[in-house]
Amino acid sequence: MLNLKVSVIGSGNWGSAIAKIVAENAAENSDIFETDVRMWVFEELVAGQKLTEIINTQHENVKYLPGIKLPSNVVAVPDLLDAVKDANLLVFNVPHQFLPRICSQLKGKVPSTVRAVSCIKGVEVSGDGITIIADYISQELGIYCGALSGANLAPEVAQEKFSETTIAYKVPDPSDSIDARVVRTLFHRPYFHVNVVGDVAGVSLCGALKNIVALASGFVDGMAWGDNAKAAIIRRGLLEMTKFGREFFPECNASTFTEESCGVADVITSCSGGRNNKLGAAMIKTRRPIFELEEELLKGQKAQGVTTAQEVHEFLERRGKLEDFPLFTAVHDIIFNGLDSYALPQILEDVEQKF
Amino acid sequence: MLNLKVSVIGSGNWGSAIAKIVAENAAENSDIFETDVRMWVFEELVAGQKLTEIINTQHENVKYLPGIKLPSNVVAVPDLLDAVKDANLLVFNVPHQFLPRICSQLKGKVPSTVRAVSCIKGVEVSGDGITIIADYISQELGIYCGALSGANLAPEVAQEKFSETTIAYKVPDPSDSIDARVVRTLFHRPYFHVNVVGDVAGVSLCGALKNIVALASGFVDGMAWGDNAKAAIIRRGLLEMTKFGREFFPECNASTFTEESCGVADVITSCSGGRNNKLGAAMIKTRRPIFELEEELLKGQKAQGVTTAQEVHEFLERRGKLEDFPLFTAVHDIIFNGLDSYALPQILEDVEQKF
Repeated sequence: MLNLKVSVIGSGNWGSAIAKIVAENAAENSDIFETDVRMWVFEELVAGQKLTEIINTQHENVKYLPGIKLPSNVVAVPDLLDAVKDANLLVFNVPHQFLPRICSQLKGKVPSTVRAVSCIKGVEVSGDGITIIADYISQELGIYCGALSGANLAPEVAQEKFSETTIAYKVPDPSDSIDARVVRTLFHRPYFHVNVVGDVAGVSLCGALKNIVALASGFVDGMAWGDNAKAAIIRRGLLEMTKFGREFFPECNASTFTEESCGVADVITSCSGGRNNKLGAAMIKTRRPIFELEEELLKGQKAQGVTTAQEVHEFLERRGKLEDFPLFTAVHDIIFNGLDSYALPQILEDVEQKF
Repeated sequence: MLNLKVSVIGSGNWGSAIAKIVAENAAENSDIFETDVRMWVFEELVAGQKLTEIINTQHENVKYLPGIKLPSNVVAVPDLLDAVKDANLLVFNVPHQFLPRICSQLKGKVPSTVRAVSCIKGVEVSGDGITIIADYISQELGIYCGALSGANLAPEVAQEKFSETTIAYKVPDPSDSIDARVVRTLFHRPYFHVNVVGDVAGVSLCGALKNIVALASGFVDGMAWGDNAKAAIIRRGLLEMTKFGREFFPECNASTFTEESCGVADVITSCSGGRNNKLGAAMIKTRRPIFELEEELLKGQKAQGVTTAQEVHEFLERRGKLEDFPLFTAVHDIIFNGLDSYALPQILEDVEQKF
C-alpha cells in the first residue's frame, strides 16, 4: 500500500481532462494511490458561484471543460498550498506563463521526495539557451520532474476518444518508489495509451518545435500545393526537429521524434488543422501580417509557433547554425522578413543529397 | 559523354508523369543522356486516332494524363521491343499485373549492362514468401533494378506541385557508369526532390504495407474518432511496417520507414484521403461488404490494401507471427472476420509497454 497522494495543478481544458484520467486511475488502483485527487483551481465566479464549488458539487468544470463529467474523486481546491499539501506526486498543467509564479509560491514547501510530471508542452528558448520546462520545475522545487506530451487534443481526450501519449520519466534512483511503472499506471487508460521513455529533453523539444512545422504546413495549405507537398514538409520538419534535438541535447534519442506519439504523431495532428496550421494558411492566403490574423482568428489565444520560430531563429543565429535548419529558418523569414513561401522547394533543395 | 538512352515502360497517369520528368532532365543533361526518351504505350484508339500518334503530335496523353503538356522529346512507341532497343536505362511504370507478360517479352533481349528503376509500388506477398517487384525484374531480365516510391500522387506531380520521392538504387559494382548520381540526375527536378538510398527491400515494402495502414486510418475516419486517434493509428502502423521490414528483410534500414518519403510521408498522404482510406471509412460507416463498396466507390479500380492485408495475413500466419503485428492482423480481421473496429484500442493495448 503506497497510498500516494496525487495533486493536479491547473484546471483548464487540458488540466481538467488530465485530472479526469488521473482520478479514474487513482480510484481503480487503491493499492498504489489514495482515491481523492486534488486539483488546484484558480478561483473565479461563474454565474455568481465559485468555480471550485461547482466542480465539487456538479463534478463538471462548466467553464473550461463543459459537458464532461469529472469523477467525484476529483476535489477542486482553490488554495495552491492546500492543494499540494502532503502530496507525493504533482501533475503540472497550467499555461506556461503562469508557471514562474506558481513555482515561486511552492518553493521550499515541497519535500525533495515528491515527484512531478509536467504536461506543459515545450521549452523556453532564448538566444542564450533552451530551458526545458520540466527541468525548470525540477530546479525551482528541488524535485525530479518528467514530461508528458503527445498527439492529444484535449476535447477528444476528455470525450474518451482513443489517443496515445508519451511520458518521459526516469528517476535517477531506480529503486525510487514512484517509478516509471507507477507513473504509467497513473496516466494509462483504455482510451489513453501511455508509452514511457527516458528522454525528457526530446519529449519537451517535440512539443515546442512541432509548432514551427505546423506553420510551414499551413503555408502549404495556403498555397494549395496538395497532399504530396504537405507530407514532404512534415517529413522535412520532423527531420529538422530530430537534428535540432541531437545537436543541442546529445542525450536525446532520434526515436523520440520519429517513433513516439510526442513526435511523429503530434506533428501529424498539429499539421492537420491546429492553430498554427490555420494561422500559416491564413497568412499566405490573405498576405496580411501574422499578428493581426492571430488576433482575429484565435480570439486572444496565442499560436505558440510564431514565438517559437522567432526564439529558435535567434538561438540558431547566435550559434551560426541557421543554414543547417533551412525549414525553421524559412518559416521565420516568411513571417518576419517577407520571404516568398513559393521559394520553399528551392530552399530545401539546397541542403539535399550531395554525392 | 555517356549518351545514355532512357526508355519508360508504361504510360498511365504515373507513367506519363514520370516520362515527363525524365524527359525534362534528359534534355537538360545532354552530357549524360540522349535527349529523346522513348515511352512504351499500349496502343489504343482514342476518337479514332492512335494514342501514340496523338502523344507524338499533340504532346499530351489525352487519355491518361489529360491537360498536361509532355516535353516534345517524349517519343511514344507502340512496340515494346522497339521501345527498349539499345536502351541503357529502363524505367518500369505499369500496373503490376501486366509485369509478368512484359518481362517475358523482354527476356533475353536486354543486355546485362542495362540498368532499371521500378516505379511499380510494392511487393508480391504470398503465404510462401515475399517477392520485391524490383528483384523480380532483376531476376527475369538479368539486370540490376532499383525502386522508386514516395508520397507521389501522380496528378500533383504532373502539375509540378512540390513533392519528394525516394529511390533505392545501389549497383553492386561502385564503378558502374550508371550509378546513384546518374539516377538522381534523371529523376530529380526543382519540384520533385529525390533522395537516393540503398534499401530496395525497405522502399518496396513501404509502398505495399502503407495500404494496410491507410485502411486502418479509414476505419478511424468511419468511426469519427478524431485527429488523436488517426495520428495514433498512423504511428502504430508505421512501427509495424518497420518491424515487418526488419524481421523478414534484416538488411532493411528502419530509417527508410521512419525518415524517407517512401515511408512516413507516403503513409501520411495515403491516410489523408487515398483510395484505401476512403474504402476503410465507407466500410465502417455503411457496414457493407468491402468488395461491394470497392466496386461502387472505385469504379473498377482496386484498393491494393485489401489484397495486401490478406496476403500479409497469410504470410504472418504461416510463420506464427500474427501476434507481433496486431494492427495488420486487426485490419484483416475487421475486413474478413467481422471483428468490431471499436476493439482497436484494446487490441493495440495488449502489446504495449510491459515493465
